[in-house]
Amino acid sequence: MMATETHFHKELEELKENLLRMAAMVEEDIRDSVQSLVKRDSELAQKTFEFEDRINKLEIAIEDMCLKLLALRQPMAKDLRFITSAMKIVTDLERMGDQAVNIAERAISLNQEPQLKPYIDIPKMAEITQSMVKDVLDAFVNHDSKLARSVCERDDMVDGLNDQVFRELLIYMMSDPKTITRAVHLMIVCRCLERVADHATNIAEDVIFMVDALVIKHHADAKKGE
Amino acid sequence: MMATETHFHKELEELKENLLRMAAMVEEDIRDSVQSLVKRDSELAQKTFEFEDRINKLEIAIEDMCLKLLALRQPMAKDLRFITSAMKIVTDLERMGDQAVNIAERAISLNQEPQLKPYIDIPKMAEITQSMVKDVLDAFVNHDSKLARSVCERDDMVDGLNDQVFRELLIYMMSDPKTITRAVHLMIVCRCLERVADHATNIAEDVIFMVDALVIKHHADAKKGE
Repeated sequence: MMATETHFHKELEELKENLLRMAAMVEEDIRDSVQSLVKRDSELAQKTFEFEDRINKLEIAIEDMCLKLLALRQPMAKDLRFITSAMKIVTDLERMGDQAVNIAERAISLNQEPQLKPYIDIPKMAEITQSMVKDVLDAFVNHDSKLARSVCERDDMVDGLNDQVFRELLIYMMSDPKTITRAVHLMIVCRCLERVADHATNIAEDVIFMVDALVIKHHADAKKGE
Repeated sequence: MMATETHFHKELEELKENLLRMAAMVEEDIRDSVQSLVKRDSELAQKTFEFEDRINKLEIAIEDMCLKLLALRQPMAKDLRFITSAMKIVTDLERMGDQAVNIAERAISLNQEPQLKPYIDIPKMAEITQSMVKDVLDAFVNHDSKLARSVCERDDMVDGLNDQVFRELLIYMMSDPKTITRAVHLMIVCRCLERVADHATNIAEDVIFMVDALVIKHHADAKKGE
Protein backbone atom coordinates (compact mmCIF):
# COMPACT_ATOMS: atom_id res chain seq x y z
CA MET A 1 0.00 0.00 0.00
CA MET A 2 2.77 2.39 0.98
CA ALA A 3 4.68 1.65 -2.25
CA THR A 4 1.58 2.40 -4.32
CA GLU A 5 1.04 5.70 -2.55
CA THR A 6 4.65 6.75 -3.14
CA HIS A 7 4.21 5.85 -6.79
CA PHE A 8 1.00 7.87 -7.00
CA HIS A 9 2.77 10.79 -5.38
CA LYS A 10 5.52 10.59 -8.03
CA GLU A 11 2.95 10.51 -10.80
CA LEU A 12 1.26 13.61 -9.41
CA GLU A 13 4.64 15.38 -9.29
CA GLU A 14 5.25 14.39 -12.90
CA LEU A 15 1.82 15.76 -13.84
CA LYS A 16 2.65 19.06 -12.13
CA GLU A 17 5.98 19.31 -13.95
CA ASN A 18 4.29 18.72 -17.29
CA LEU A 19 1.67 21.37 -16.56
CA LEU A 20 4.37 23.91 -15.69
CA ARG A 21 6.29 22.95 -18.82
CA MET A 22 3.20 23.48 -20.98
CA ALA A 23 2.54 26.85 -19.32
CA ALA A 24 6.15 27.91 -19.98
CA MET A 25 5.70 27.00 -23.65
CA VAL A 26 2.51 29.04 -23.92
CA GLU A 27 4.18 31.96 -22.20
CA GLU A 28 7.07 31.85 -24.69
CA ASP A 29 4.55 31.52 -27.51
CA ILE A 30 2.74 34.71 -26.50
CA ARG A 31 6.02 36.57 -26.11
CA ASP A 32 7.18 35.46 -29.58
CA SER A 33 3.90 36.40 -31.26
CA VAL A 34 3.91 39.91 -29.79
CA GLN A 35 7.65 40.35 -30.40
CA SER A 36 7.11 39.41 -34.05
CA LEU A 37 4.81 42.45 -34.18
CA VAL A 38 6.94 44.81 -32.11
CA LYS A 39 10.20 43.92 -33.89
CA ARG A 40 8.43 43.55 -37.26
CA ASP A 41 9.97 40.06 -37.50
CA SER A 42 7.69 37.79 -39.53
CA GLU A 43 10.11 34.87 -39.22
CA LEU A 44 9.56 34.88 -35.49
CA ALA A 45 5.83 34.70 -36.22
CA GLN A 46 6.47 31.44 -38.11
CA LYS A 47 7.94 29.93 -34.94
CA THR A 48 4.53 30.34 -33.31
CA PHE A 49 2.94 28.12 -35.95
CA GLU A 50 5.53 25.39 -35.33
CA PHE A 51 5.06 25.70 -31.59
CA GLU A 52 1.33 25.10 -31.91
CA ASP A 53 1.87 21.47 -32.89
CA ARG A 54 4.13 20.80 -29.90
CA ILE A 55 1.64 22.43 -27.53
CA ASN A 56 -1.21 20.31 -28.94
CA LYS A 57 0.81 17.12 -28.48
CA LEU A 58 1.65 18.01 -24.91
CA GLU A 59 -2.05 18.67 -24.26
CA ILE A 60 -2.97 15.16 -25.41
CA ALA A 61 -0.10 13.59 -23.43
CA ILE A 62 -1.13 15.34 -20.20
CA GLU A 63 -4.78 14.46 -20.73
CA ASP A 64 -3.87 10.79 -21.18
CA MET A 65 -1.80 10.95 -18.04
CA CYS A 66 -4.81 12.35 -16.13
CA LEU A 67 -7.18 9.71 -17.47
CA LYS A 68 -4.74 6.96 -16.47
CA LEU A 69 -4.41 8.43 -12.98
CA LEU A 70 -8.19 8.56 -12.63
CA ALA A 71 -8.68 5.02 -13.91
CA LEU A 72 -5.80 3.26 -12.16
CA ARG A 73 -5.40 5.22 -8.93
CA GLN A 74 -9.04 6.12 -8.35
CA PRO A 75 -8.09 9.19 -6.33
CA MET A 76 -10.42 10.77 -3.81
CA ALA A 77 -11.35 14.32 -2.79
CA LYS A 78 -8.37 16.65 -3.11
CA ASP A 79 -6.44 14.60 -5.67
CA LEU A 80 -9.56 13.91 -7.71
CA ARG A 81 -10.32 17.62 -7.90
CA PHE A 82 -6.70 18.37 -8.78
CA ILE A 83 -6.62 15.91 -11.68
CA THR A 84 -9.97 16.96 -13.17
CA SER A 85 -8.91 20.61 -12.89
CA ALA A 86 -5.62 19.76 -14.63
CA MET A 87 -7.63 18.36 -17.55
CA LYS A 88 -9.51 21.65 -17.85
CA ILE A 89 -6.36 23.70 -17.53
CA VAL A 90 -4.58 22.00 -20.43
CA THR A 91 -7.57 22.90 -22.61
CA ASP A 92 -7.23 26.52 -21.51
CA LEU A 93 -3.50 26.48 -22.19
CA GLU A 94 -4.01 25.02 -25.64
CA ARG A 95 -6.51 27.77 -26.46
CA MET A 96 -4.10 30.41 -25.25
CA GLY A 97 -1.66 28.92 -27.77
CA ASP A 98 -4.35 29.39 -30.45
CA GLN A 99 -4.55 33.07 -29.53
CA ALA A 100 -0.78 33.39 -29.98
CA VAL A 101 -1.24 31.97 -33.49
CA ASN A 102 -3.96 34.55 -34.17
CA ILE A 103 -1.62 37.33 -33.03
CA ALA A 104 1.21 36.00 -35.20
CA GLU A 105 -1.09 35.97 -38.24
CA ARG A 106 -2.06 39.60 -37.65
CA ALA A 107 1.62 40.50 -37.10
CA ILE A 108 2.52 39.08 -40.51
CA SER A 109 -0.19 41.24 -42.17
CA LEU A 110 0.80 44.33 -40.20
CA ASN A 111 4.53 43.88 -40.89
CA GLN A 112 3.83 44.25 -44.60
CA GLU A 113 2.58 47.81 -44.14
CA PRO A 114 4.10 50.92 -42.55
CA GLN A 115 3.82 50.86 -38.77
CA LEU A 116 0.70 52.74 -37.68
CA LYS A 117 1.98 53.86 -34.29
CA PRO A 118 4.68 53.02 -31.74
CA TYR A 119 3.73 49.88 -29.86
CA ILE A 120 3.87 50.72 -26.15
CA ASP A 121 0.68 49.46 -24.50
CA ILE A 122 0.49 46.21 -26.48
CA PRO A 123 3.87 44.86 -25.24
CA LYS A 124 2.81 45.99 -21.76
CA MET A 125 -0.44 44.00 -22.10
CA ALA A 126 1.56 41.01 -23.35
CA GLU A 127 3.96 41.20 -20.41
CA ILE A 128 1.16 41.26 -17.84
CA THR A 129 -0.64 38.46 -19.64
CA GLN A 130 2.49 36.29 -19.68
CA SER A 131 2.96 36.84 -15.95
CA MET A 132 -0.67 35.78 -15.42
CA VAL A 133 -0.11 32.52 -17.31
CA LYS A 134 3.01 31.73 -15.30
CA ASP A 135 1.58 32.67 -11.92
CA VAL A 136 -1.78 30.99 -12.31
CA LEU A 137 -0.09 27.66 -13.00
CA ASP A 138 2.21 28.16 -10.01
CA ALA A 139 -0.87 28.99 -7.94
CA PHE A 140 -2.56 25.81 -9.15
CA VAL A 141 0.26 23.37 -8.45
CA ASN A 142 1.02 24.98 -5.06
CA HIS A 143 -2.63 25.47 -3.99
CA ASP A 144 -1.85 29.17 -3.54
CA SER A 145 -5.13 31.10 -3.57
CA LYS A 146 -3.41 34.38 -2.71
CA LEU A 147 -1.34 34.22 -5.90
CA ALA A 148 -4.49 33.23 -7.80
CA ARG A 149 -6.22 36.34 -6.49
CA SER A 150 -3.38 38.54 -7.73
CA VAL A 151 -3.89 37.00 -11.19
CA CYS A 152 -7.55 38.07 -11.13
CA GLU A 153 -6.49 41.60 -10.19
CA ARG A 154 -4.10 41.77 -13.14
CA ASP A 155 -7.00 40.96 -15.46
CA ASP A 156 -8.44 44.40 -14.67
CA MET A 157 -5.13 45.96 -15.70
CA VAL A 158 -5.23 44.13 -19.01
CA ASP A 159 -8.84 45.20 -19.59
CA GLY A 160 -7.87 48.79 -18.76
CA LEU A 161 -4.99 48.79 -21.25
CA ASN A 162 -7.23 47.18 -23.84
CA ASP A 163 -9.84 49.94 -23.46
CA GLN A 164 -7.10 52.56 -23.74
CA VAL A 165 -5.63 51.13 -26.95
CA PHE A 166 -9.13 50.71 -28.34
CA ARG A 167 -10.00 54.37 -27.82
CA GLU A 168 -6.68 55.47 -29.26
CA LEU A 169 -7.17 53.33 -32.36
CA LEU A 170 -10.70 54.69 -32.83
CA ILE A 171 -9.22 58.19 -33.00
CA TYR A 172 -6.72 57.07 -35.67
CA MET A 173 -9.52 55.51 -37.68
CA MET A 174 -11.76 58.55 -37.44
CA SER A 175 -9.06 61.03 -38.43
CA ASP A 176 -7.67 58.99 -41.32
CA PRO A 177 -9.64 56.21 -43.05
CA LYS A 178 -6.38 54.84 -44.54
CA THR A 179 -5.47 53.60 -41.05
CA ILE A 180 -8.67 51.58 -40.56
CA THR A 181 -7.44 48.17 -41.75
CA ARG A 182 -4.28 48.34 -39.66
CA ALA A 183 -6.19 49.66 -36.66
CA VAL A 184 -8.66 46.77 -36.86
CA HIS A 185 -5.75 44.28 -36.99
CA LEU A 186 -4.31 45.89 -33.86
CA MET A 187 -7.68 45.82 -32.12
CA ILE A 188 -7.83 42.10 -32.77
CA VAL A 189 -4.30 41.61 -31.40
CA CYS A 190 -5.48 43.34 -28.21
CA ARG A 191 -8.58 41.19 -27.99
CA CYS A 192 -6.44 38.06 -28.38
CA LEU A 193 -4.28 39.13 -25.44
CA GLU A 194 -7.43 39.93 -23.50
CA ARG A 195 -8.71 36.41 -24.26
CA VAL A 196 -5.48 34.90 -22.93
CA ALA A 197 -5.86 36.95 -19.77
CA ASP A 198 -9.48 35.74 -19.51
CA HIS A 199 -8.36 32.12 -19.74
CA ALA A 200 -5.79 32.74 -16.99
CA THR A 201 -8.48 34.42 -14.88
CA ASN A 202 -10.85 31.49 -15.39
CA ILE A 203 -8.15 29.15 -14.11
CA ALA A 204 -7.42 31.50 -11.20
CA GLU A 205 -11.09 31.49 -10.19
CA ASP A 206 -11.08 27.69 -10.23
CA VAL A 207 -7.95 27.65 -8.07
CA ILE A 208 -9.55 30.01 -5.55
CA PHE A 209 -12.72 27.93 -5.53
CA MET A 210 -10.73 24.71 -5.16
CA VAL A 211 -8.45 25.95 -2.37
CA ASP A 212 -11.18 27.75 -0.43
CA ALA A 213 -13.58 24.81 -0.70
CA LEU A 214 -10.83 22.65 0.76
CA VAL A 215 -10.25 25.18 3.53
CA ILE A 216 -13.97 25.31 4.35
CA LYS A 217 -14.18 21.51 4.25
CA HIS A 218 -11.10 21.27 6.44
CA HIS A 219 -12.68 23.57 9.04
CA ALA A 220 -15.91 21.56 8.95
CA ASP A 221 -14.00 18.30 9.38
CA ALA A 222 -11.97 19.78 12.23
CA LYS A 223 -15.21 20.88 13.93
CA LYS A 224 -16.70 17.41 13.54
CA GLY A 225 -13.60 16.01 15.22
CA GLU A 226 -13.89 18.36 18.21
CA MET B 1 -23.72 -5.37 -8.01
CA MET B 2 -26.52 -5.28 -10.60
CA ALA B 3 -28.45 -2.76 -8.52
CA THR B 4 -25.40 -0.49 -8.33
CA GLU B 5 -24.92 -0.65 -12.08
CA THR B 6 -28.54 0.26 -12.73
CA HIS B 7 -28.16 3.14 -10.34
CA PHE B 8 -24.99 4.29 -12.10
CA HIS B 9 -26.81 4.08 -15.43
CA LYS B 10 -29.58 6.29 -14.04
CA GLU B 11 -27.06 8.83 -12.78
CA LEU B 12 -25.41 8.96 -16.20
CA GLU B 13 -28.81 9.56 -17.80
CA GLU B 14 -29.47 12.35 -15.35
CA LEU B 15 -26.08 13.87 -16.20
CA LYS B 16 -26.94 13.76 -19.90
CA GLU B 17 -30.31 15.43 -19.29
CA ASN B 18 -28.67 18.21 -17.33
CA LEU B 19 -26.09 18.78 -20.06
CA LEU B 20 -28.83 19.05 -22.69
CA ARG B 21 -30.78 21.39 -20.43
CA MET B 22 -27.74 23.64 -20.00
CA ALA B 23 -27.13 23.63 -23.77
CA ALA B 24 -30.77 24.61 -24.40
CA MET B 25 -30.37 27.51 -21.98
CA VAL B 26 -27.22 28.72 -23.72
CA GLU B 27 -28.94 28.41 -27.09
CA GLU B 28 -31.86 30.53 -25.86
CA ASP B 29 -29.39 32.98 -24.36
CA ILE B 30 -27.62 33.50 -27.69
CA ARG B 31 -30.94 33.88 -29.49
CA ASP B 32 -32.14 36.49 -26.98
CA SER B 33 -28.91 38.49 -27.13
CA VAL B 34 -28.97 38.69 -30.93
CA GLN B 35 -32.71 39.35 -31.01
CA SER B 36 -32.22 42.24 -28.58
CA LEU B 37 -29.99 43.73 -31.28
CA VAL B 38 -32.15 42.86 -34.29
CA LYS B 39 -35.43 43.97 -32.67
CA ARG B 40 -33.70 46.87 -30.88
CA ASP B 41 -35.18 45.54 -27.63
CA SER B 42 -32.87 46.45 -24.73
CA GLU B 43 -35.24 44.85 -22.21
CA LEU B 44 -34.61 41.49 -23.85
CA ALA B 45 -30.89 42.17 -23.41
CA GLN B 46 -31.50 42.43 -19.65
CA LYS B 47 -32.89 38.88 -19.66
CA THR B 48 -29.45 37.68 -20.78
CA PHE B 49 -27.85 39.13 -17.64
CA GLU B 50 -30.37 37.34 -15.43
CA PHE B 51 -29.84 34.10 -17.35
CA GLU B 52 -26.10 34.22 -16.69
CA ASP B 53 -26.58 33.51 -13.02
CA ARG B 54 -28.77 30.47 -13.70
CA ILE B 55 -26.27 29.10 -16.21
CA ASN B 56 -23.39 29.53 -13.74
CA LYS B 57 -25.35 27.68 -11.04
CA LEU B 58 -26.14 24.82 -13.39
CA GLU B 59 -22.44 24.62 -14.30
CA ILE B 60 -21.46 24.15 -10.65
CA ALA B 61 -24.26 21.61 -10.08
CA ILE B 62 -23.22 19.49 -13.09
CA GLU B 63 -19.57 19.66 -12.10
CA ASP B 64 -20.40 18.46 -8.59
CA MET B 65 -22.43 15.64 -10.09
CA CYS B 66 -19.42 14.62 -12.22
CA LEU B 67 -17.02 14.71 -9.26
CA LYS B 68 -19.41 12.56 -7.22
CA LEU B 69 -19.70 10.05 -10.05
CA LEU B 70 -15.91 9.88 -10.37
CA ALA B 71 -15.37 9.49 -6.63
CA LEU B 72 -18.19 7.09 -5.78
CA ARG B 73 -18.60 5.03 -8.95
CA GLN B 74 -14.94 4.98 -10.05
CA PRO B 75 -15.94 4.49 -13.70
CA MET B 76 -13.59 2.95 -16.25
CA ALA B 77 -12.71 3.60 -19.89
CA LYS B 78 -15.75 4.86 -21.82
CA ASP B 79 -17.67 6.21 -18.83
CA LEU B 80 -14.57 7.81 -17.35
CA ARG B 81 -13.89 9.63 -20.62
CA PHE B 82 -17.55 10.66 -20.87
CA ILE B 83 -17.63 12.20 -17.39
CA THR B 84 -14.32 14.07 -17.70
CA SER B 85 -15.45 15.38 -21.09
CA ALA B 86 -18.73 16.51 -19.55
CA MET B 87 -16.75 18.56 -17.03
CA LYS B 88 -14.95 20.31 -19.85
CA ILE B 89 -18.14 20.86 -21.83
CA VAL B 90 -19.93 22.69 -19.01
CA THR B 91 -16.99 25.10 -18.91
CA ASP B 92 -17.39 25.69 -22.64
CA LEU B 93 -21.13 26.19 -22.25
CA GLU B 94 -20.65 28.67 -19.44
CA ARG B 95 -18.22 30.67 -21.56
CA MET B 96 -20.68 30.68 -24.44
CA GLY B 97 -23.12 32.24 -22.00
CA ASP B 98 -20.49 34.91 -21.27
CA GLN B 99 -20.36 35.70 -24.98
CA ALA B 100 -24.14 36.15 -25.04
CA VAL B 101 -23.73 38.69 -22.23
CA ASN B 102 -21.07 40.50 -24.29
CA ILE B 103 -23.45 40.62 -27.26
CA ALA B 104 -26.29 41.93 -25.09
CA GLU B 105 -24.04 44.72 -23.76
CA ARG B 106 -23.13 45.78 -27.30
CA ALA B 107 -26.81 45.58 -28.29
CA ILE B 108 -27.75 48.02 -25.52
CA SER B 109 -25.13 50.51 -26.77
CA LEU B 110 -26.14 50.06 -30.41
CA ASN B 111 -29.86 50.40 -29.65
CA GLN B 112 -29.25 53.93 -28.38
CA GLU B 113 -28.06 55.08 -31.81
CA PRO B 114 -29.60 54.99 -35.28
CA GLN B 115 -29.28 51.56 -36.88
CA LEU B 116 -26.16 51.48 -39.08
CA LYS B 117 -27.41 48.89 -41.55
CA PRO B 118 -30.06 46.17 -41.88
CA TYR B 119 -29.02 43.12 -39.87
CA ILE B 120 -29.09 40.15 -42.23
CA ASP B 121 -25.86 38.18 -41.86
CA ILE B 122 -25.62 38.56 -38.07
CA PRO B 123 -28.94 36.77 -37.37
CA LYS B 124 -27.86 34.16 -39.92
CA MET B 125 -24.58 33.67 -38.02
CA ALA B 126 -26.53 33.44 -34.77
CA GLU B 127 -28.89 30.83 -36.20
CA ILE B 128 -26.04 28.61 -37.40
CA THR B 129 -24.20 29.06 -34.11
CA GLN B 130 -27.29 28.07 -32.11
CA SER B 131 -27.71 24.94 -34.22
CA MET B 132 -24.05 24.10 -33.55
CA VAL B 133 -24.58 24.35 -29.78
CA LYS B 134 -27.64 22.13 -29.92
CA ASP B 135 -26.17 19.52 -32.26
CA VAL B 136 -22.78 19.23 -30.61
CA LEU B 137 -24.41 18.35 -27.30
CA ASP B 138 -26.67 15.83 -29.03
CA ALA B 139 -23.57 14.42 -30.72
CA PHE B 140 -21.84 14.16 -27.35
CA VAL B 141 -24.59 12.39 -25.42
CA ASN B 142 -25.32 10.03 -28.34
CA HIS B 143 -21.67 9.36 -29.30
CA ASP B 144 -22.53 10.55 -32.82
CA SER B 145 -19.29 11.50 -34.58
CA LYS B 146 -21.09 12.13 -37.88
CA LEU B 147 -23.19 14.87 -36.33
CA ALA B 148 -20.04 16.23 -34.64
CA ARG B 149 -18.35 16.43 -38.04
CA SER B 150 -21.27 18.46 -39.42
CA VAL B 151 -20.79 20.90 -36.53
CA CYS B 152 -17.15 21.40 -37.56
CA GLU B 153 -18.26 22.08 -41.13
CA ARG B 154 -20.71 24.74 -39.97
CA ASP B 155 -17.83 26.54 -38.26
CA ASP B 156 -16.46 27.37 -41.72
CA MET B 157 -19.84 28.89 -42.64
CA VAL B 158 -19.73 31.08 -39.54
CA ASP B 159 -16.16 32.15 -40.31
CA GLY B 160 -17.20 32.96 -43.89
CA LEU B 161 -20.13 35.12 -42.76
CA ASN B 162 -17.89 36.80 -40.20
CA ASP B 163 -15.34 37.73 -42.90
CA GLN B 164 -18.15 39.05 -45.10
CA VAL B 165 -19.66 41.28 -42.39
CA PHE B 166 -16.15 42.42 -41.44
CA ARG B 167 -15.37 43.57 -44.99
CA GLU B 168 -18.74 45.27 -45.29
CA LEU B 169 -18.24 47.13 -42.02
CA LEU B 170 -14.75 48.22 -43.08
CA ILE B 171 -16.30 49.87 -46.14
CA TYR B 172 -18.82 51.71 -43.95
CA MET B 173 -16.02 52.91 -41.69
CA MET B 174 -13.84 54.07 -44.54
CA SER B 175 -16.58 55.98 -46.31
CA ASP B 176 -18.00 57.66 -43.20
CA PRO B 177 -16.01 58.05 -39.96
CA LYS B 178 -19.25 58.73 -38.05
CA THR B 179 -20.08 55.03 -38.45
CA ILE B 180 -16.84 53.78 -36.89
CA THR B 181 -18.01 53.34 -33.29
CA ARG B 182 -21.14 51.47 -34.31
CA ALA B 183 -19.21 49.38 -36.83
CA VAL B 184 -16.68 48.35 -34.16
CA HIS B 185 -19.55 47.33 -31.84
CA LEU B 186 -20.97 45.18 -34.63
CA MET B 187 -17.56 43.65 -35.38
CA ILE B 188 -17.34 42.62 -31.74
CA VAL B 189 -20.83 41.09 -31.85
CA CYS B 190 -19.64 39.01 -34.82
CA ARG B 191 -16.49 37.95 -33.03
CA CYS B 192 -18.56 36.89 -30.01
CA LEU B 193 -20.69 34.66 -32.23
CA GLU B 194 -17.53 33.34 -33.85
CA ARG B 195 -16.17 32.52 -30.36
CA VAL B 196 -19.35 30.58 -29.52
CA ALA B 197 -18.96 28.65 -32.77
CA ASP B 198 -15.32 27.98 -31.84
CA HIS B 199 -16.35 26.57 -28.47
CA ALA B 200 -18.89 24.32 -30.19
CA THR B 201 -16.21 23.21 -32.66
CA ASN B 202 -13.77 22.45 -29.84
CA ILE B 203 -16.40 20.21 -28.24
CA ALA B 204 -17.14 18.60 -31.64
CA GLU B 205 -13.46 17.77 -32.12
CA ASP B 206 -13.38 16.16 -28.68
CA VAL B 207 -16.47 14.11 -29.54
CA ILE B 208 -14.87 12.92 -32.80
CA PHE B 209 -11.65 12.06 -30.96
CA MET B 210 -13.57 10.28 -28.21
CA VAL B 211 -15.84 8.26 -30.51
CA ASP B 212 -13.10 7.38 -33.02
CA ALA B 213 -10.64 6.40 -30.28
CA LEU B 214 -13.32 4.09 -28.94
CA VAL B 215 -13.90 2.68 -32.41
CA ILE B 216 -10.16 2.11 -32.91
CA LYS B 217 -9.88 0.56 -29.45
CA HIS B 218 -12.91 -1.62 -30.17
CA HIS B 219 -11.31 -2.91 -33.37
CA ALA B 220 -8.04 -3.60 -31.56
CA ASP B 221 -9.88 -5.47 -28.79
CA ALA B 222 -11.86 -7.47 -31.37
CA LYS B 223 -8.61 -8.42 -33.11
CA LYS B 224 -7.07 -9.50 -29.83
CA GLY B 225 -10.08 -11.74 -29.30
CA GLU B 226 -9.82 -13.37 -32.75
